[in-house]
Amino acid sequence: MSLPVKDRFDLPEGVIYLDGNSLGPLPLSVKSGLQGVVEDQWGQNLIKGWNVDRWMEQPTRVGNRVARLIGAPEGSVVMGDTLSLKVYQAVSAALEMRPDRKVVLSDNGNFPTDLYMAEGLIRHLDKRHELRVVAPEEVADAITEEVAAVMITQVDYRSGRMHDMAAITAKAHSVGAVMIWDLAHSAGAVELDLEGSNCEFAVGCTYKYLNGGPGAPAFIYVRPDLTDGIAPALAGWMGHDAPFAFEQSYRPAGGIERMRVGTPPVLQMSALEMALEAWDGVDMGDLRAASVRLCDLFIAEVEAKCPELTLASPRDAAQRGSQVSFAFEHGYAAMQALIARGVIGDFRAPNIMRFGFTPLYIDEGDVVQAVDILADILNTKAWDREEYQTRSRVT
Amino acid sequence: MSLPVKDRFDLPEGVIYLDGNSLGPLPLSVKSGLQGVVEDQWGQNLIKGWNVDRWMEQPTRVGNRVARLIGAPEGSVVMGDTLSLKVYQAVSAALEMRPDRKVVLSDNGNFPTDLYMAEGLIRHLDKRHELRVVAPEEVADAITEEVAAVMITQVDYRSGRMHDMAAITAKAHSVGAVMIWDLAHSAGAVELDLEGSNCEFAVGCTYKYLNGGPGAPAFIYVRPDLTDGIAPALAGWMGHDAPFAFEQSYRPAGGIERMRVGTPPVLQMSALEMALEAWDGVDMGDLRAASVRLCDLFIAEVEAKCPELTLASPRDAAQRGSQVSFAFEHGYAAMQALIARGVIGDFRAPNIMRFGFTPLYIDEGDVVQAVDILADILNTKAWDREEYQTRSRVT
Repeated sequence: MSLPVKDRFDLPEGVIYLDGNSLGPLPLSVKSGLQGVVEDQWGQNLIKGWNVDRWMEQPTRVGNRVARLIGAPEGSVVMGDTLSLKVYQAVSAALEMRPDRKVVLSDNGNFPTDLYMAEGLIRHLDKRHELRVVAPEEVADAITEEVAAVMITQVDYRSGRMHDMAAITAKAHSVGAVMIWDLAHSAGAVELDLEGSNCEFAVGCTYKYLNGGPGAPAFIYVRPDLTDGIAPALAGWMGHDAPFAFEQSYRPAGGIERMRVGTPPVLQMSALEMALEAWDGVDMGDLRAASVRLCDLFIAEVEAKCPELTLASPRDAAQRGSQVSFAFEHGYAAMQALIARGVIGDFRAPNIMRFGFTPLYIDEGDVVQAVDILADILNTKAWDREEYQTRSRVT
Repeated sequence: MSLPVKDRFDLPEGVIYLDGNSLGPLPLSVKSGLQGVVEDQWGQNLIKGWNVDRWMEQPTRVGNRVARLIGAPEGSVVMGDTLSLKVYQAVSAALEMRPDRKVVLSDNGNFPTDLYMAEGLIRHLDKRHELRVVAPEEVADAITEEVAAVMITQVDYRSGRMHDMAAITAKAHSVGAVMIWDLAHSAGAVELDLEGSNCEFAVGCTYKYLNGGPGAPAFIYVRPDLTDGIAPALAGWMGHDAPFAFEQSYRPAGGIERMRVGTPPVLQMSALEMALEAWDGVDMGDLRAASVRLCDLFIAEVEAKCPELTLASPRDAAQRGSQVSFAFEHGYAAMQALIARGVIGDFRAPNIMRFGFTPLYIDEGDVVQAVDILADILNTKAWDREEYQTRSRVT
């Protein structure tokens, strides 16, 4: 399968979409398929859909598709809920695995909701635990024998800076800490070997590089040897060993199913399941190579044509995910001007212009054209117009 | 608005659907509208959908539509996640409100996932709390000063037996306990006055009587005077006061927004938002009156024509939700035979045939016809065929 596979996506005319790291575009399989789920499955089969359309097994079936993309074995990944909730499940399980330790270690490059969820859990739990947040470059040294769980997002959502998964996991294990990876900006973006890393937990979302649609379900990976020892904090009926026996007490299902909670969002899950067809035949090594080429080209082009901008991502591809950020004083307005010209990236305060590179539907020509438009905006100071200064709530 | 409003639904030909208490049918508004969300909002607007299509406010906007149907004021209800998780939010908040008390009281007519979630919370929290489960008729007497929270599903999922919301809430408050109502089988089924009941919390799902589609988001109600005092256990970024400021610490939003957790499931939420249009102009008092007529008619018809069946629901409409159950030794097979003839109800072990009555799309003619088919199956012992004996996983 040679990349890109643009014909698998419904990309708007005249748009170069460099924001697939926020929300992936619409796969054609979803465009043509979701209405059938609505009309034929829900509409015609009604309650029977749980059986005949196999809605009930969908969270693990889709989990297996995601597993291939993140280097995890069959049966180790299940879909559901949101990334925030999957973080909660992982941290609560990790703390139960290390009852004598009181520190959850993270870094300030982590996406805030991970920190909030750990904070909420700790505050609610007993207030004797501590969420310790250090700088990304201090993580390795901060992993001490006090630490129950290391909870790190591999790729920084602002800069694209990528942690060394194998090294940090090995350090955590060397002191007996449990390792939790958040793969929000990794899944579908970089080559992963979760199984080889030996980490205990990983979580991630599917609406970014995996193109599952706005609010698509999250995933959780549990190392297979650990699953049956976990007593889930979020003990919902779909994680019960016999959900339709309606027993009065919780008895967790064997395997990864115990990480399920409530009734799965069938329409949203079906959209995701169809969206993942866009990955059929795609080799993650090829994808990573293409991603590095696109990012390197973008950096070279911007540095040649847009001297006002300063690289805010690692220059070394080995330390970078699949996005490139540049700092620019007038970054917010410049991004608005760029979006108005059809090049969609996004902005993160205070001054970061962020661009995601998604080899499934972005090629070298797109990169060069995007930078030419950016250079034109900078040369003409187009960003200085009043219409680009007003901040909307979400970018 | 006179009921039914069958022309608002896409009901399969030749089907009498008496299982809207499990999964509501497809509203025409969703059938015609969801593809536009996929193609125009996601497909064309991409990341801008959060602003221009107002996805961000959808959980509270839809919450206001649900509020009207359950007798709650504007701004007191928010959508998201699953009912299991909303139970967790409510119970954890209630326990924080009564730190000196250690009992969560429920009854064995509660849907099991509520009990599981409370059990998981307690086990995880500190193991000093206790989930105490009594028989439904013992609830009032079991509400003592030991009780921190009373967590009750108003309408029993098997029998349709309905608790007296005002009386039990008053009893809970008389001893200083917090009241949590699960409205899974109440919302859209009976007339509710949540505000008048003065209960602290209510939760519910929207894929049953509210017809939001398989896996539609849940809701949570918090009594408005309490909301700003709650420190959520599930402290996700969408409940933060400034989610896009990406602050390192959690600072809950004012009002009901703090009960939000992660990124909302936009496709599923949009389906629900469109589905709720089927309630436009429907008066909940009229709906309840129609529901009582349908249920009473069904009981009378079955008792006249099907003497093999024994009523397993309260005969008094005031003590019954919008479903009627009958016990029958061969209930499983008889339900399969009935489904094969186009009358869809469901079965709950060991011997309960359950029928939901939904005045939006069911009328007296449907009820009479359904009972005639049931009587024919019983008279001919059609249920005795081998094909109807094998049990599938979900019914």
